[in-house]
Amino acid sequence: MLDHELAEFYRKALLEDVVPFWMQHSLDSQAGGYFTLLDRQGKVYGQSKYTWLQGRETWLFSTLHNTVEKRADWLAAARLGAEFLKQHAFAPGGRCWFALNSDGSPASRPRRIFSEVFVAMGLVAYWRASGDGQSLEMARAAYKQVIEHVYDPEVMFYRSPAGSSPAGMHASPMVALCCSQVMADCDSDNSGLYAGEIQRAVALLLERYVRDDGVLFEIVMADGRVPAGPEGRLINPGHAIESAWFLLEEAQRQKNNALVETACRIIERSLELGWDQEQGGLFYFVDIESRPPLQLDWDMKLWWVHTEALYALLLAHKLTGDQKWRRWYWRVHEYSFGHFPDPEFGEWFGYLHRDGSVAIPAKGGRWKGAFHLPRTLLRCWKLLAGDNCAD
Amino acid sequence: MLDHELAEFYRKALLEDVVPFWMQHSLDSQAGGYFTLLDRQGKVYGQSKYTWLQGRETWLFSTLHNTVEKRADWLAAARLGAEFLKQHAFAPGGRCWFALNSDGSPASRPRRIFSEVFVAMGLVAYWRASGDGQSLEMARAAYKQVIEHVYDPEVMFYRSPAGSSPAGMHASPMVALCCSQVMADCDSDNSGLYAGEIQRAVALLLERYVRDDGVLFEIVMADGRVPAGPEGRLINPGHAIESAWFLLEEAQRQKNNALVETACRIIERSLELGWDQEQGGLFYFVDIESRPPLQLDWDMKLWWVHTEALYALLLAHKLTGDQKWRRWYWRVHEYSFGHFPDPEFGEWFGYLHRDGSVAIPAKGGRWKGAFHLPRTLLRCWKLLAGDNCAD
Repeated sequence: MLDHELAEFYRKALLEDVVPFWMQHSLDSQAGGYFTLLDRQGKVYGQSKYTWLQGRETWLFSTLHNTVEKRADWLAAARLGAEFLKQHAFAPGGRCWFALNSDGSPASRPRRIFSEVFVAMGLVAYWRASGDGQSLEMARAAYKQVIEHVYDPEVMFYRSPAGSSPAGMHASPMVALCCSQVMADCDSDNSGLYAGEIQRAVALLLERYVRDDGVLFEIVMADGRVPAGPEGRLINPGHAIESAWFLLEEAQRQKNNALVETACRIIERSLELGWDQEQGGLFYFVDIESRPPLQLDWDMKLWWVHTEALYALLLAHKLTGDQKWRRWYWRVHEYSFGHFPDPEFGEWFGYLHRDGSVAIPAKGGRWKGAFHLPRTLLRCWKLLAGDNCAD
Repeated sequence: MLDHELAEFYRKALLEDVVPFWMQHSLDSQAGGYFTLLDRQGKVYGQSKYTWLQGRETWLFSTLHNTVEKRADWLAAARLGAEFLKQHAFAPGGRCWFALNSDGSPASRPRRIFSEVFVAMGLVAYWRASGDGQSLEMARAAYKQVIEHVYDPEVMFYRSPAGSSPAGMHASPMVALCCSQVMADCDSDNSGLYAGEIQRAVALLLERYVRDDGVLFEIVMADGRVPAGPEGRLINPGHAIESAWFLLEEAQRQKNNALVETACRIIERSLELGWDQEQGGLFYFVDIESRPPLQLDWDMKLWWVHTEALYALLLAHKLTGDQKWRRWYWRVHEYSFGHFPDPEFGEWFGYLHRDGSVAIPAKGGRWKGAFHLPRTLLRCWKLLAGDNCAD
């Protein structure tokens, strides 16, 4: 397919399928915020409002308004999330609740720092869309919590035993990087702060979590050692590839070829280890020595793992010109669009068995909301539209 | 199959397959305790020693010695676990570490109260096998922690949002019941204490978690309401059936027919909701209204769900004489022995996909050790051997 045809394919998937699904089923115009527990048809099957997903969907509608078109309905949808977050997300002391009830009352106390990450991203993008100063202020407050706690193993705990020294998670520099990038894009008055945090996150990620051959470990001890046993051998190909495109975008901004190469090595190794040679698609978790994984769901095929790979591979191709990324991209594109979309009720299934059959027909769950899929469709569309090379 | 043939089948599976597998691969004669991260062939793929599994395996070898034969090798194997637990399991303050490193140093701090449950069960059974007074003392100490914390929602937390009032878990009365039953069996000097706790657990289980039609909810709020949304609709058929046979054993002791009926109703409803009509076997989690489950692994077939059903159904048949339990038993027997045993390296696979194919080939993991399978084989064997009725 030609790039402009592919661009059109992604644009249509975004604007004629995915965004309308969430616009139609997700908005809680009564209590504010979004329903995200949506079944296959879009019907609400639970009213909990997970703070992660509220922040992410606020980010999505704001970003559509900021980068696609100044549509009043998107701005109104973004406002629904932003006002809900401003009013309900923050617990006394400044941390964010993990989940809220439908009416905004707290349902689950703060845990790790991800809620704050997505509240910051959602509110800062909404500020850019709306000019609402309170949203900027509260985005900065949430971001302050992120930076204060994101490297603290007491907050970003890894629960499984991995030796007696506290373990760190790849997720820490990963979300610090992503959140700082979004803040930097929207809040130019604080660019120095964000640039410093981006530098810190990139350095930590590369020094501590990435092996020379591109293996990106999920768990590393505070002293830098990889723990013995399954925890130390664990990789999460989707996480690794997602971090890699955060690094690629940074490398592009900095015109840093060495960083492009490192990020590409992570992508390559993650695909080698993570691609299911027998049944296609990317595994959720992999043991780098092919020993038994501890995660029961290790071989499931998750939507977000594939969306992250799509954009990472297109971007790797753009930045290097190397056709091998384009070939990998096409393989992932064919698998993804051959398995995840729901032809009957729209949007994507999130969770497939190893053999590609649907394990959970819902469109939204505790972790699946309006984020990874539309973010990738938007980024792939824009990347392809600006690139006139034929395949 | 005639009962005595079935009894012999279970006896052989226990004594010629399962127990030898763990005797051969699991004992850490150097540092004490047991390796439980064993791959398909029995090779160690990680050295973490989870306290749950250390306690459970100590219970197993002690119980074999107590009820099958006074074999010195079983007693020595039990001692390896008991000494390791006595030396390393307890954290300052009396709670038990969640996991230990190979050498016994603490790896993961106390969490919910399950570690203490299995330490108590393991040490009290070892006391009965060995007469070691220190083991009895420490079993009682662990049991004291269980009773102190098992109904405390701060310790037995349910992490997902389920409304703002704290939620209770079916697991609380369930493990209190099981642990008290094992303590009562072994420590007759304290029978009053255990009888009281058994009564309390049974009452709480029936009053709070069991609906009139036999649905046994996994999560109920402190105020007795079932939470709205997927948490409230969640059942775990294996858990429910396991609790049901704890209740059946209690009913048998008390000659309480009403309790037999209630337990049978739980079994029946759990099978109706949990049996996979399309591909056979029991689901791991089920939404009672067939709405989308939140658990990614909801439709996997787990070994322990099936072992608990085997014994529960045989016991239900024995106590009621109703042939429907025998028919269900045979259905579960055929599924289980047709799918879980590893014909090449022995023991059972623990985790199958919905379609019955093996998802994880390991014999031991974070939760699978030497417990559910041998416990069921032993109980079914003994039950069948004492019962001469033909099928």
